[in-house]
Amino acid sequence: MPVEVGFIGLGAMGLPMAEALIDAGFSLTVYNRTASKADPLVARGARRAATPADAARPGGITITMVADDTALEAVSLGNNGIIERLGPGGVHLSMSTVSPALSRRLAEAHARCGGAYLACPVVGRPDRAKARKLWILLSGPAAAKERVRPLLDAMGQQTFDLGERSDAAHVMKLVNNFLIMSAIEAIAEALVMAEKGGLDVPTVARVLTSSLFNSPMYQGYLDIITRGAYDPPGFKLKLGLKDIELVLGMAGEANVPAPTASLIRDHIIEGLARGMGELDWAAVALVARENAGLKR
Amino acid sequence: MPVEVGFIGLGAMGLPMAEALIDAGFSLTVYNRTASKADPLVARGARRAATPADAARPGGITITMVADDTALEAVSLGNNGIIERLGPGGVHLSMSTVSPALSRRLAEAHARCGGAYLACPVVGRPDRAKARKLWILLSGPAAAKERVRPLLDAMGQQTFDLGERSDAAHVMKLVNNFLIMSAIEAIAEALVMAEKGGLDVPTVARVLTSSLFNSPMYQGYLDIITRGAYDPPGFKLKLGLKDIELVLGMAGEANVPAPTASLIRDHIIEGLARGMGELDWAAVALVARENAGLKR
Amino acid sequence: MPVEVGFIGLGAMGLPMAEALIDAGFSLTVYNRTASKADPLVARGARRAATPADAARPGGITITMVADDTALEAVSLGNNGIIERLGPGGVHLSMSTVSPALSRRLAEAHARCGGAYLACPVVGRPDRAKARKLWILLSGPAAAKERVRPLLDAMGQQTFDLGERSDAAHVMKLVNNFLIMSAIEAIAEALVMAEKGGLDVPTVARVLTSSLFNSPMYQGYLDIITRGAYDPPGFKLKLGLKDIELVLGMAGEANVPAPTASLIRDHIIEGLARGMGELDWAAVALVARENAGLKR
Amino acid sequence: MPVEVGFIGLGAMGLPMAEALIDAGFSLTVYNRTASKADPLVARGARRAATPADAARPGGITITMVADDTALEAVSLGNNGIIERLGPGGVHLSMSTVSPALSRRLAEAHARCGGAYLACPVVGRPDRAKARKLWILLSGPAAAKERVRPLLDAMGQQTFDLGERSDAAHVMKLVNNFLIMSAIEAIAEALVMAEKGGLDVPTVARVLTSSLFNSPMYQGYLDIITRGAYDPPGFKLKLGLKDIELVLGMAGEANVPAPTASLIRDHIIEGLARGMGELDWAAVALVARENAGLKR
Repeated sequence: MPVEVGFIGLGAMGLPMAEALIDAGFSLTVYNRTASKADPLVARGARRAATPADAARPGGITITMVADDTALEAVSLGNNGIIERLGPGGVHLSMSTVSPALSRRLAEAHARCGGAYLACPVVGRPDRAKARKLWILLSGPAAAKERVRPLLDAMGQQTFDLGERSDAAHVMKLVNNFLIMSAIEAIAEALVMAEKGGLDVPTVARVLTSSLFNSPMYQGYLDIITRGAYDPPGFKLKLGLKDIELVLGMAGEANVPAPTASLIRDHIIEGLARGMGELDWAAVALVARENAGLKR
Repeated sequence: MPVEVGFIGLGAMGLPMAEALIDAGFSLTVYNRTASKADPLVARGARRAATPADAARPGGITITMVADDTALEAVSLGNNGIIERLGPGGVHLSMSTVSPALSRRLAEAHARCGGAYLACPVVGRPDRAKARKLWILLSGPAAAKERVRPLLDAMGQQTFDLGERSDAAHVMKLVNNFLIMSAIEAIAEALVMAEKGGLDVPTVARVLTSSLFNSPMYQGYLDIITRGAYDPPGFKLKLGLKDIELVLGMAGEANVPAPTASLIRDHIIEGLARGMGELDWAAVALVARENAGLKR
Repeated sequence: MPVEVGFIGLGAMGLPMAEALIDAGFSLTVYNRTASKADPLVARGARRAATPADAARPGGITITMVADDTALEAVSLGNNGIIERLGPGGVHLSMSTVSPALSRRLAEAHARCGGAYLACPVVGRPDRAKARKLWILLSGPAAAKERVRPLLDAMGQQTFDLGERSDAAHVMKLVNNFLIMSAIEAIAEALVMAEKGGLDVPTVARVLTSSLFNSPMYQGYLDIITRGAYDPPGFKLKLGLKDIELVLGMAGEANVPAPTASLIRDHIIEGLARGMGELDWAAVALVARENAGLKR
Repeated sequence: MPVEVGFIGLGAMGLPMAEALIDAGFSLTVYNRTASKADPLVARGARRAATPADAARPGGITITMVADDTALEAVSLGNNGIIERLGPGGVHLSMSTVSPALSRRLAEAHARCGGAYLACPVVGRPDRAKARKLWILLSGPAAAKERVRPLLDAMGQQTFDLGERSDAAHVMKLVNNFLIMSAIEAIAEALVMAEKGGLDVPTVARVLTSSLFNSPMYQGYLDIITRGAYDPPGFKLKLGLKDIELVLGMAGEANVPAPTASLIRDHIIEGLARGMGELDWAAVALVARENAGLKR
């Protein structure tokens, strides 16, 4: 008999992750604020939950993959939230990109109910989610981690264990995203220098990815920026603002100055002010172009 | 009979590059301002030149690998410089990291003498030079490029052709170095966030290099910074200032704002002000630590 | 018979402001979270309130001068808050530095109860409050503004009317504080340049304040920084972080990039990381000194 | 019999300064690269010099007020330059904004010829020059300073003595200009915040200049920016780039990080890239507007 799992949040990332679980034989109860997003999963046998709490059962496992801190609080706390419903022995597998501060609060709330909070954000964009090639960052109580391992194996290519702390994997995720955004910003500035310096930009991209920068991240973003392929977005610029503000919030709490993060935030805001919010967050490269007097 | 080549500049990079040429059977005439640096090469059969011009012969090839624009001008122009001596048919293989503006001036000077200037900076630190694993960036007149190919094959693992312009390979080199420094700066800030956020820093480095950041550059600098291995330096912080100022100069000439480069320059200056000039340029990570209240 | 007024928040600013009102003949009911702060006022005839609501009476006027958004929410909303108690015809004279977003929410809450919210932050440090030399920024409903005028005349030297919007005076206050902090940051960098450039710093300060910069703000901060007079603080660096984050929050909401504000935030955080949180916010000048390799 | 003085450099500042000297009864020999700029002075009795050296006589006084380091070197050194011609007892009154490094070199050159170099830049725009309201910064040998005092009294409202060093007044001038540019940048960001935050911008300007910011500098730039009065320029944005690069060069030499100066340089470059080079340097406010999505 298949393991039953709740899954809340069926956006660009959540949907392919839930599909991976169905493919692997898990039985899902799914919830999304806009209910129609669940249709493809229901068509494949998933049960539709009426409330977040309805996607949890006592002692079970519920996965959350929602947009931000506010959404995660909304589906976790209160009468309709999953924490009370999961109760003793329940496991909240929290895969969203959220603040470490919230994760600590939720972990305490779960602990008060006898359940466990697992920090479990993922690295990768929707294409990786579809290909089950996500990298998974995990931290929290050991027993709970053991229990969710088959789920993680179905969704990702590798899981990194960051220890027992409820916030560790979220810190790691923000560090990762900060490094991505820093690289995008640097690529953006570099390619404008190259172009105005008379180089052929695709050649520049080829040289970089053939030498020191031959990693999936540089390959991916150099390709997007060189082709100007910001739409459809893999990850929207306006969500990038959320992420960099999470980074700045985390750093600020710990009294860590983060000037590169500040600079990125300013450039994302410039992009939003110029109507780029729905484009891929690599569109900071368009900001860099315009700031150097080039056409978009 | 072996091809004779002049080689000027026997520092941490020049020396292993010259050795690679001797290994490959070339006959070298070598010059270095501090003459004793040439001793190991003389011991292996190289001829010692008394002046830069003495390391050039009419119609021959001379390689320069010197510290900065000032040094390159000094060995190129004037009575003791190589340009007049190389004369018609001569080739100046210019492998230093210098300003595109200087390369354009030197290319004109060579052209007036009937010779050719090849922009040919390299990507890689001394360890790569020793291992003949440099990546080589090349631009300039086609015939001259053809003629130096055996030399480049002896020194590097791959040569990228950036076209005919006298400055193109130097622009590419500065773009490359800017991206490296941007990554170092971002890593520096990220690891402080991680440490003050409670993560185990070596674990963080392992996660990053196992996922999106599995490139030689990130692997190398995450390793240096995680181990605090700034001494002996692969590339000194004070030379990093020279490079970022070349980047800012190039960008400024073309009216390209480069806020990340500005930020890096400020942090390098902070490092120099705190006595870190002789450390590896990854020591900007020490600046980031101190700015967050951590001990060096 | 004297007009009765509630006054909540008796810190470094609130206390001298309340004293000014007593001096002018108003009858005060005072509240402070740490009750003993009210003692000097009670000794002069003020009534001590047990709760925030107790410092309000139906249709009356209550002044709030508290630390931040959280504190203002706490004394305004809920059973113990002033909004319900002031009720129809009541006036909330809100003199704290808070976010425009909160002011809009509170104005709505007052309106629902039939009362009025007046945005009324002040410009000036404790010495100006003691000397009744504050500049007062005011916005909100015209009738309420008319009613509080005698109070404002007792506390400040001049009131600027910013119109009817509930948030306008708070926006103005943040703009003002941003300009102050920008000037402090610039002074800090400038004086380090001057000192390391061989100038006598007090002479520099004298030249500046005798020519283009002869305003109270530059005079005040050049004096503090030149003398190193950060303790006791007029306004603490850790509160400066609050203010610059209010600025960044306001700017971010409106999609306004504010790179100077970002830079200031980073430097304040550096100061906090180095243990300067209890010093005057002009201590960013110490951050600038240390970053240039000078002793504190 | 009137004192004879040489005057080199008749631009927007030099011309009214030279006129002030004629008004005060001095006899001028004038030189400008574009000779026709001297016509109004020749019409008033000045002698036209054919070369810079021709505007100097042995043991006399020559004033220079030229565009930049390159121009000052050109009129000072070599056969046609003033240094040799002034010779023993000559005084070079150097009023341009130039690098402290160049002033040190020129002071040495004068000393070798037995003459004196006086660093003497001025604070104020063309309107102040016309009104003889300049502030004058002065450093150098005491005897030479005494000799030029009548000239300075004719051109400015006040002279500040910065001591004997040949570069001190130039350092002071750069510190001053850095503070002006910092204030312009901050005003630019602040007014965009205010406008997008719903305030009436002229009211904001009035409040600021009536309270903490009632100095000529804030009054002047708030007026220019509020009215959008960038053309004709008082000081061109492209010259602002020169000045901020002098600031960064001076700071860099002394290992002083100057992040605010870096930020300003980036924004000036953005302005130049968008075609604003001929506007007043307060046009960085247009950059701030566009970066926030507002129309120019």
